[in-house]
Amino acid sequence: MAGMTIKDIAKKCHVGVSTVSRAMNNHPDINPETKEKILKAIEEANYVPNNSARNLKRNDAKAIAVLVKGIGNTFFSELVGILERECEKKGYSCILQYVDEQEDEWDVAIRVGKEKRLRGLVFLGGSFSQSQEKISQMEIPCVLSTICTVGMPGASLASVSVDDFKESYKMTEYLIGLGHKKIAFITAPKNDASIGKLRLMGYRTALEQYQIPYREELVCYMDEKRDTYSYQSGYRLMQELLKRETFTAVYATADTLAIGACRALKEAGISVPEECSVAGFDGMDAGRFYIPSLTTIRQPVEEIGKATAGLLFDLIKGKEKPRQLIYEGELIQRESTARCKQ
Amino acid sequence: MAGMTIKDIAKKCHVGVSTVSRAMNNHPDINPETKEKILKAIEEANYVPNNSARNLKRNDAKAIAVLVKGIGNTFFSELVGILERECEKKGYSCILQYVDEQEDEWDVAIRVGKEKRLRGLVFLGGSFSQSQEKISQMEIPCVLSTICTVGMPGASLASVSVDDFKESYKMTEYLIGLGHKKIAFITAPKNDASIGKLRLMGYRTALEQYQIPYREELVCYMDEKRDTYSYQSGYRLMQELLKRETFTAVYATADTLAIGACRALKEAGISVPEECSVAGFDGMDAGRFYIPSLTTIRQPVEEIGKATAGLLFDLIKGKEKPRQLIYEGELIQRESTARCKQ
Repeated sequence: MAGMTIKDIAKKCHVGVSTVSRAMNNHPDINPETKEKILKAIEEANYVPNNSARNLKRNDAKAIAVLVKGIGNTFFSELVGILERECEKKGYSCILQYVDEQEDEWDVAIRVGKEKRLRGLVFLGGSFSQSQEKISQMEIPCVLSTICTVGMPGASLASVSVDDFKESYKMTEYLIGLGHKKIAFITAPKNDASIGKLRLMGYRTALEQYQIPYREELVCYMDEKRDTYSYQSGYRLMQELLKRETFTAVYATADTLAIGACRALKEAGISVPEECSVAGFDGMDAGRFYIPSLTTIRQPVEEIGKATAGLLFDLIKGKEKPRQLIYEGELIQRESTARCKQ
Repeated sequence: MAGMTIKDIAKKCHVGVSTVSRAMNNHPDINPETKEKILKAIEEANYVPNNSARNLKRNDAKAIAVLVKGIGNTFFSELVGILERECEKKGYSCILQYVDEQEDEWDVAIRVGKEKRLRGLVFLGGSFSQSQEKISQMEIPCVLSTICTVGMPGASLASVSVDDFKESYKMTEYLIGLGHKKIAFITAPKNDASIGKLRLMGYRTALEQYQIPYREELVCYMDEKRDTYSYQSGYRLMQELLKRETFTAVYATADTLAIGACRALKEAGISVPEECSVAGFDGMDAGRFYIPSLTTIRQPVEEIGKATAGLLFDLIKGKEKPRQLIYEGELIQRESTARCKQ
């Protein structure tokens, strides 16, 4: 059926070309049965509409973009893959856009949203300490993925994530349960107002709940200028920590950071978990196959990816209002953590 | 200069609107000097053409797509990041499109090239045993990245890669130099006619050069249906190998496969490198921070990514003919390989 045109479809369905166009463009002014008949005919004919002609009418390129901040974070590549496949199912193009660490992801979003005439946007990573004013400049639906906005300035935004406070509390409590009292914490830059803040609060609250004094010296923040959620940063930050503190456990807020930290410990002659327990966050495959395999909080990446796409498409269709979806993380106990011997 | 229209550009250059259109659309029927003048004026004016209107005329959405086959291969995510940033610099959108293992990447390419009216395409992964006939159906410029086509059916295609035969020979020779004779080989599916075939030839030729008989039983092919270039597949394939063969070294054609293999060896109580050397291919960060750190062939991913984008944009502009760019890999010797003790 190659070479089939909109006219052929119209003829086949005994309707006018404009009716076919209304069906294709989801126009409300069409009989639902007619619409169904036309869409079925299009499908059967393998008719590929001329997108550009459609775009002109609809002002709509049927594309969404995924803005990724933190290129070192391989956790995101799995999520991007899931999002792309969901777009494919819906007939959307998935434009990938990386944001430099120094750039404001919100400025980038507003710019590309206009330039590329996107229908929607997904944010992966970023700190989201945005003002309400900036948020209101955004003219298209967007969803923050793996970023929790509850109680944050961006609380009006749609998001799909785990409860970062709760999961972080859970991991800290688990390490305390193993007898650790000196628990170092490797985390996001100090000014991170979303994930970083919530996970720090979870860590701190758990310590206090168990009468362990919170010590700022045990917290090692990523350097906003030098670090990303990468193996290299975990390695570097652990080397720094080793110079200034003693501890029996380390909890890093990404598996990549935890793996880098393990490598630095090994090179310093400290064995994991015998002399130091190490725990991560995310549940990446790399941690599962690492030696020692990594104790972590598994984020349900498949569910989060699908829910992100689902929520975004509902927002695009006007079927939903922005809301916050929270998924449960899972503490996975592996070889990198053990009972404190001191 | 916001709000500048095609008419303003025409006026500024003392030409008609249709001439500006011809310049923008790379139409052959235009005086080269006039074309240059117009393009310069457009650039100076920061004129952002109305994409949808242009598409209709130009058949051109200023987008390229990156087709990724092998979602488990985190090596590609770094490359995708580099490609995206190069697109950004040129004002192109970078559409990400995953190809399922079962799909023919060439069919997908032909389809999305038309549907999304792309200006160009980059292939990452895939086997490329395409017939010349299929290749000739492709109407837009494309570049194979990290896929070597020299001597392959797709030799007319542009590609940027290392010399897979040579690099594979290099790694095998290195292991032979350590005294290994029983070198297992974990690689692409048997029917892979590009990278897989070339790397197998490199392995085989090195063995024969050193009078070591090639034994098919030591070669462990990925199962086309079950495996990807993932940690999990390396783990599974090593478990299979351990059941049927003895060997003192393993060379896997991806770092992910090698890391999975290390994990399976550990669980079988075999220490790396004391009892078995393990080598990978790619030079991923994960291998650098693994314990033991992984001996590998580093592909110059930054150079390959930039050259891929550069070649593609040159092809799009008609400045280049398809050609094959070969980069040098680097053998990085780390902890996972050692002298054979048997």
